[in-house]
Amino acid sequence: ASGMSEPVTAPHILVTNDDGITSPGILALKDALAAVGRVTVLAPSRNWSASGHVKTMHKPLRVDEVTLPDGALALATDGAPSDSVALAFLGMVERPIDIVVSGINNGANLGHDVTYSGTVTAAMEGAIAGVPAIAVSLTERGHPDLSLAAQFAVRLTREVLARGLPPATLLNVNVPPVSTDELQGILVTRMGLRIYRDELVRRLDPRGRPYYWIGGPEPTGVEEEGTDIWAVAHGYISVTPLQLDLTARCMVEALTDWRLSL
Amino acid sequence: ASGMSEPVTAPHILVTNDDGITSPGILALKDALAAVGRVTVLAPSRNWSASGHVKTMHKPLRVDEVTLPDGALALATDGAPSDSVALAFLGMVERPIDIVVSGINNGANLGHDVTYSGTVTAAMEGAIAGVPAIAVSLTERGHPDLSLAAQFAVRLTREVLARGLPPATLLNVNVPPVSTDELQGILVTRMGLRIYRDELVRRLDPRGRPYYWIGGPEPTGVEEEGTDIWAVAHGYISVTPLQLDLTARCMVEALTDWRLSL
Repeated sequence: ASGMSEPVTAPHILVTNDDGITSPGILALKDALAAVGRVTVLAPSRNWSASGHVKTMHKPLRVDEVTLPDGALALATDGAPSDSVALAFLGMVERPIDIVVSGINNGANLGHDVTYSGTVTAAMEGAIAGVPAIAVSLTERGHPDLSLAAQFAVRLTREVLARGLPPATLLNVNVPPVSTDELQGILVTRMGLRIYRDELVRRLDPRGRPYYWIGGPEPTGVEEEGTDIWAVAHGYISVTPLQLDLTARCMVEALTDWRLSL
Repeated sequence: ASGMSEPVTAPHILVTNDDGITSPGILALKDALAAVGRVTVLAPSRNWSASGHVKTMHKPLRVDEVTLPDGALALATDGAPSDSVALAFLGMVERPIDIVVSGINNGANLGHDVTYSGTVTAAMEGAIAGVPAIAVSLTERGHPDLSLAAQFAVRLTREVLARGLPPATLLNVNVPPVSTDELQGILVTRMGLRIYRDELVRRLDPRGRPYYWIGGPEPTGVEEEGTDIWAVAHGYISVTPLQLDLTARCMVEALTDWRLSL
């Protein structure tokens, strides 16, 4: 009808996550990003935290249309978060897709968490597909107020759509559990050092056979200024630019001096 | 008995992989590394190719003692490759562990493959645990001769044990399917650009419901000199130093100039 109010250039935003399609975080993200463009949700049907960068090739995947609590349609898969993005770009979702936004994750993705994180590896898959990608996490699990994270996701998505990102890069955003008034600001950061405190918990099943949980308290981190860990600990939103190239360039020369042979 | 022939400083080597504990690659690696030190095998009981950097926290894991075809004892888990390494450092394996060697993978782990790769993410887990780690892959699937890859794994393991690696780094090795005579040499490389050619294959189950395979031919890559992809295509073993820090440092300044706000 009123063709002028709907610009033909409305960006198409793919939203996914690793907590599963029924999580409050993905619903808040979808709702907020509707102000920026056309949103398609394709996400895992279950929780995939710490699932890593998966490409499921050893079994087939299901993709089912589901109705979200607000009545909107979405696609749910039994694949991983990164599978969701791969499936979208392989044709399960109408293209072009202009940007991938993953989250809002229930919990932090700081420091070395990024290679484990389903939220971040879903964004990596967007970068591999050649589009800008953003991962958004709220650092406190179960924090009820998603509005600051959603508001910043909207702002950052607009900026990235306007400015673009270099090839093979993505943005990893962590939002502290504070109100807009309490927020200290927004910092561009580097990855900090995460300190994992995992413990092995041994149990016996009803038949007396042992099984093992990877348990222990939440990881901490080194609060060095300039890092994502410092930023969120001091009430800032951290925005860490990540690259898919993991080459340790500072080591190339030293390793060459090893003069490796058989 | 003859205590002098067994130096008390014999290094303890953890061997794992992503093809599963029965694969020829892990057996060849274990056998070859016995010349370097005491080898403990803890590996997945099944294939985990392209499984990513997993930390299994949503379910417990089994760890079972198994007997390898040569009669040696090993530990098998239903967890992922990176879980295997985490389980070892959390106490399933006697410590200290001096180095993690993952492989020999049946197929290449080049360019952007590294974050998907179970072989490489198992080595990442070693680096996170604070020990040197090496991932070894033979680039041609099903290539019957594992001797060159095993020979170089021994040489590199000795070098890394003697020289160490910087914190939070690891080495990713790809060996071309050539004989020792045909080998052009060994190159220290950077990650190249992988070109994925995945295709979605839609099928119907016996009840008429669709399911989807991520299929398509093997990935290719951009053969740029200095990269892992160029090296193995030209008959060299590639050794790529990788780091856990994915920060795109060249973007930090540009992003700061965006002056992000809410």
